[in-house]
Amino acid sequence: MAIIYGNNTIRSTLKVNGVRKLFIAKGYSNKEILDLALKSKIDITYCEKRELDRITNNGIHQGIVGEVKNIETYSLSSLIEASKKVTNPIIVMLDELNDPHNLGAILRSGDAFNISGIVFKSRGQVSLNDTVAKVSTGAINYVKCCQVTNLSQSIVALKKEGFWVVGLDGGVNETLKDVPTNVPLVVVVGSEGYGISRLVKENCDLIVKIPMLGHVNCLNASVACSIALYAIRNR
Amino acid sequence: MAIIYGNNTIRSTLKVNGVRKLFIAKGYSNKEILDLALKSKIDITYCEKRELDRITNNGIHQGIVGEVKNIETYSLSSLIEASKKVTNPIIVMLDELNDPHNLGAILRSGDAFNISGIVFKSRGQVSLNDTVAKVSTGAINYVKCCQVTNLSQSIVALKKEGFWVVGLDGGVNETLKDVPTNVPLVVVVGSEGYGISRLVKENCDLIVKIPMLGHVNCLNASVACSIALYAIRNR
Repeated sequence: MAIIYGNNTIRSTLKVNGVRKLFIAKGYSNKEILDLALKSKIDITYCEKRELDRITNNGIHQGIVGEVKNIETYSLSSLIEASKKVTNPIIVMLDELNDPHNLGAILRSGDAFNISGIVFKSRGQVSLNDTVAKVSTGAINYVKCCQVTNLSQSIVALKKEGFWVVGLDGGVNETLKDVPTNVPLVVVVGSEGYGISRLVKENCDLIVKIPMLGHVNCLNASVACSIALYAIRNR
Repeated sequence: MAIIYGNNTIRSTLKVNGVRKLFIAKGYSNKEILDLALKSKIDITYCEKRELDRITNNGIHQGIVGEVKNIETYSLSSLIEASKKVTNPIIVMLDELNDPHNLGAILRSGDAFNISGIVFKSRGQVSLNDTVAKVSTGAINYVKCCQVTNLSQSIVALKKEGFWVVGLDGGVNETLKDVPTNVPLVVVVGSEGYGISRLVKENCDLIVKIPMLGHVNCLNASVACSIALYAIRNR
């Protein structure tokens, strides 16, 4: 069971009806959040602050901790079905992402830019844990996550359904402006340390870069993914 | 003294000449990084892996830890002077940001999109610590940071120098496409929980939103800032 904490995260997750149970420190007084919790008829346990310190491993909980509802995952075929109901669907594929902050932020941007789901491997990368739930501020309850055993096979299946597969990477001349319009898209984001793996890259239809003017050689993975989603949705 | 660790972070920071000293576990064998370190003539101490566990508080150090060079901060007037040497300068202003991951990612994007510096308060927000240095993957050595006591006074000073001040926030109709071209810009990013504070917002020339299509009500702060910088630099 994933837990989340802190006023902002709890507020967002309450608003999307994603909290199963709340633990609130005695004396906690955020009226907006208490009202939201009462309105949603969520089970509340009042306890000592030190109990919340323990549950959150001394996280900055601000006196409120929640258990999130079970996070559902979806099959690739159900993601594809769902994508058929929207104009210009986008599916994000993550190639061995390791940082839960990145996955959480990508979920949040994925919700904001209306993606049809996120595909990632079931092993060898970050899982849907507490930090991901917290950083996603509720988006984890809305963005469909699909865990697969093999990304290249998933790309083949997506291409068969008409998806164009675009990888984000440096070292090319093409930019986000070269991504075709009016086709279903898969946006592939590589791992923090190594980018997109060779096999997955070979399966992409197009590799594009985000033009960078400075000294560091790549952007944070969630930032790169979010910029791509923004750029594609705001053409 | 800030420390950084892990192959990717050390590699990037070595490349920008930002490492003062390295601690390497016996048996460490990443040839690219060892070559970089030797070429840069950096002081190296070989030690046991458990010593690195201790220094990094059990971080995922991959056998290599570095001390970063002292992080210089700059005055607002030196930022303004530096901005006069570039076309369409951008300064980022952070209003009480709290998460070191966000500051690190903003430094990285700030380097990528060639900003003239970052202005933030010297008190009441995240400081330039180890996590910031690590997440910035070297950008902390390139992006000028300026700590001030009062953001509104800094805005007044920046406006006098011809800067247009644009705040990122929801609840308005204007978008990034409405940001004026060919003027020096200040991009103001609010705190993770509360956005831009009232006083700072009143001092902005323009508030713009990033159009969001989903359920959560705001993007991660570093993602929002990075999208704004990308959008402004790629018009």
